[in-house]
Amino acid sequence: MIHTDICIVGAGPVGLFAVFEAGLLKMRCHLIDALPQIGGQLSEIYPQKPIYDIPGYPTVNAQELVDNLRKQIDPFHPTFTLGERVEKLERQEDKSFIVTTSDQTQIHCKVVVIAGGLGCFEPRKPAVERLEEFEGRGVAYMVKNPETFRDKNIVLAGGGDSALDWTIFLSDVAKKVTLVHRGETFRGAPDSAEKVFHLAQEGKINLILKSNVTKINGNGVLNEVTITGNDSSEFTMEADYLIPLFGLSPKLGPIADWGLNIEKSAIQVNTFDYSTNVEGIFAIGDINTYPGKLKLILCGFHEAALMCQSAFKYVYPDQKLSFKYTTVNGINEF
Amino acid sequence: MIHTDICIVGAGPVGLFAVFEAGLLKMRCHLIDALPQIGGQLSEIYPQKPIYDIPGYPTVNAQELVDNLRKQIDPFHPTFTLGERVEKLERQEDKSFIVTTSDQTQIHCKVVVIAGGLGCFEPRKPAVERLEEFEGRGVAYMVKNPETFRDKNIVLAGGGDSALDWTIFLSDVAKKVTLVHRGETFRGAPDSAEKVFHLAQEGKINLILKSNVTKINGNGVLNEVTITGNDSSEFTMEADYLIPLFGLSPKLGPIADWGLNIEKSAIQVNTFDYSTNVEGIFAIGDINTYPGKLKLILCGFHEAALMCQSAFKYVYPDQKLSFKYTTVNGINEF
Ligand SMILES: Cc1cc2nc3c(=O)[nH]c(=O)nc-3n(C[C@H](O)[C@H](O)[C@H](O)COP(=O)(O)OP(=O)(O)OC[C@H]3O[C@@H](n4cnc5c(N)ncnc54)[C@H](O)[C@@H]3O)c2cc1C
Ligand SMILES: Cc1cc2nc3c(=O)[nH]c(=O)nc-3n(C[C@H](O)[C@H](O)[C@H](O)COP(=O)(O)OP(=O)(O)OC[C@H]3O[C@@H](n4cnc5c(N)ncnc54)[C@H](O)[C@@H]3O)c2cc1C
Repeated sequence: MIHTDICIVGAGPVGLFAVFEAGLLKMRCHLIDALPQIGGQLSEIYPQKPIYDIPGYPTVNAQELVDNLRKQIDPFHPTFTLGERVEKLERQEDKSFIVTTSDQTQIHCKVVVIAGGLGCFEPRKPAVERLEEFEGRGVAYMVKNPETFRDKNIVLAGGGDSALDWTIFLSDVAKKVTLVHRGETFRGAPDSAEKVFHLAQEGKINLILKSNVTKINGNGVLNEVTITGNDSSEFTMEADYLIPLFGLSPKLGPIADWGLNIEKSAIQVNTFDYSTNVEGIFAIGDINTYPGKLKLILCGFHEAALMCQSAFKYVYPDQKLSFKYTTVNGINEF
Repeated sequence: MIHTDICIVGAGPVGLFAVFEAGLLKMRCHLIDALPQIGGQLSEIYPQKPIYDIPGYPTVNAQELVDNLRKQIDPFHPTFTLGERVEKLERQEDKSFIVTTSDQTQIHCKVVVIAGGLGCFEPRKPAVERLEEFEGRGVAYMVKNPETFRDKNIVLAGGGDSALDWTIFLSDVAKKVTLVHRGETFRGAPDSAEKVFHLAQEGKINLILKSNVTKINGNGVLNEVTITGNDSSEFTMEADYLIPLFGLSPKLGPIADWGLNIEKSAIQVNTFDYSTNVEGIFAIGDINTYPGKLKLILCGFHEAALMCQSAFKYVYPDQKLSFKYTTVNGINEF
C-alpha cells in the first residue's frame, strides 16, 4: 500500500502542476495515470505541436511544456503509478480514502484530486470474436514494457503511427512480428511506413495487408489468431500476443460511479476551491465543469492553486495556512 | 481621442495577458498605466527576483516574465498610454465609455477592464511646506523623460535606489544635481552609493547628508528650496526642479468613485466572467476579490481568459463566439 497526502488521478498538465501547488504547502502527492507516460493529452495527442496561450510563452511545444512542468515539480518528489487505471475508491472510517487501480495497486490518501481530463484514454477495440476473454492473457492494447514481448510471437493490428512505430521497435525484440492492416497504404508518418515495407521485404517482419484479425483462440492464454482477407480468404496462425492499435478514445470510466455530480461527462465543482459534492474529493482541469468553464490548460493551473488551499485543511486539520509568495519564501523542497 | 475595443487600466502581468486573450477573439486593446513602464509590481518592485510559481517555468525573473508577455501580445499590436493615471470614466449614450487620464488623454472604448493591481502607485510625499502647490511646476515625483531636466538645476531627495540611480543618471544631463538625504548612509545598492560618494568627491554633484528639504518657494514655478540639517541649521538654494523619491505606495484612487462594489480596497466580481456590478466593466488580477481569491499572477491569467468570453459580447454583439484551441487555430495576428 502506498501512503500519501493527495492522490491525483491523471498526470496531465493540470495534475502535474497540482503537485507544485501542493508541495508549496508541504503536501505530498502520488499520481496515477492509465497511460504509460505523463503529460495527458499533450504527450498522447499532440506532443510536437506548438501551444500559443500558455502565459509567458509566446510559443511552446506541448511536450516541452510537460518536461518543464516535470522539472518544476521535481523538488517535491512526486511518485507515480503509470499504465494503470483508477478503478475503485473506498472511504475509510477516519475519512481517508483507499484508491485501487486496475492492477490492484492501492493508495491510501487523505485527499483525492481528479485531474482526469477528458477521462481515461481507452483503446478502441476492433471487432474480433472473444477479444475481451483474452485481455491480459495475450491481448494487450498498449506496450507498457517491451521486454514482455522478447522472443515471443507477436501479431499487431492497425495502420496508424502506433502500429508502425511498435512494429519497427518490436522487430528487434520479438521472435516474430506480424502486422495486419486493413488497407494497402498507412495513415502514419510516410518514413515509418517506408521502413515497415522495407522490413517486410527483408523478411524481418511479416506484413499482411487488406486483411483483418477476426478471431482468436487459445486454451486459457492466446495461442492462435485468424486473419481474414478483404477477399474473404481466411487463415489461422500461431501467436503469443495480439496487440490491436486502433487509437484511444477517452471515457469517464469508473469515476462516474463514485457518487459525484456529473453533467455531460464532467464533474460539477464550485469555484471557491474546485471541490466536488463529495467531501475530500476535488476535480480540476478538463474534467470539471462550472459556469464559465473553459477547457484550457491555464485555467486548470488556477484551479490547482485554489484547490490546494482547501486540501490543506484535510491534510493538516490543526494548522493555520499562511499565504506567502514564492519570490519571498522560495520553494523549500522536501 | 483614442478609439479601441477594450481599455485596460493597468499594464501589470494580468493586464498584459488580457491583450493576448482579447486578441485571440479579434478585440483590440489600449492599456494605461500610471507608471512610466509596463509590468506592474514585477517591474516596479522586484524586476530581478525569481518567481517559482509561474506554471511551466521552474524559475523566471520577474522582468523576464514581463518581457515574454510583451512578446506574446506583440502580434495583436496593443497601444499604450504610460505615466498617466486613469481619473475619469464617463458612460456614453450608446453604452460605450470615455476614459480620461490625469494628462487629459481620452480613450473611447466598448469595454473597460480594470487590472489595476494593488492600485495606482502613488509617490510617498515628504513633509515639505507648499509641496502640492508646485506639483507639475517644478516638483516631480518620477522621471518620465530625462530630457525635461537637461541643463537644469535639480534637487533630488531620498536615500533609496531610485534617488541614487537618478542622481547618477542626471549628473550627466542636468546643469547641477544636488542630492539631499536625511541619513549618512544609503539604503540603496552599495555600488550605487559608492558611485554617488565618488561623484560628490569629484565635485560633479552636490551631496547634502543628515538634512531634509523642508520648504520650497517660487513665483508660479519653483525657484528655490530650503534645506534643514538634522542639527537645525538651515539654508536656501536655487533650484528649477525638486524630485522627492521616497518610494511609491499603491492606492485604489479615483476608481473607488466609479460606483463599483468595493470590499477592503478590492473590486467585487463574480467568477463566471469576472464582471463587476457595472455593466461593461470587468476587474481582473490583484484588484478584484471573490470567494477563494488568491493574489497570484497565475490566477489573473485565468481571470483574463474567462473575462474575454463575455467582453466579446459587448464588442461584437451580433457575432457568435466559437471556442478554438491556439494549437489548432494559430493566433492570426492583426
Ligand atoms: C489537438 C489539441 C490541441 C489543444 N490545444 C490547446 C491549446 O492550444 N491551449 C490549451 O490551453 N489547451 C489546448 N488543448 C486542451 C488541453 O490539452 C487540455 O485542456 C489539457 O490537456 C487538460 O489537462 P488535464 O491535465 O486536465 O487533462 P489531460 O491532459 O486530459 O490528462 C488527463 C489524464 O488523466 C488520465 N486519466 C483519466 N481518468 C483516469 C483513470 N480513471 N485512471 C487513470 N488515469 C486516468 C488520462 O489518461 C490522462 O492522461 C488542446 C487539446 C487538443 C486535443
Ligand atoms: C515582493 C513581491 C513578490 C511577489 N511574488 C509573487 C510570486 O512569487 N508569485 C505570484 O504569483 N505573485 C507574486 N507577487 C504578486 C504579484 O506581483 C501580483 O499578483 C501581480 O503583480 C498582480 O498583477 P496585476 O497585473 O493584477 O497588478 P499589478 O502588477 O499590481 O499592476 C497593476 C498596474 O496598474 C496600474 N494602475 C492602477 N491603478 C491605476 C490607475 N488609476 N491609472 C493608471 N494605472 C493604474 C499600476 O500602476 C500598476 O502598474 C509578488 C508581489 C511582490 C510585491
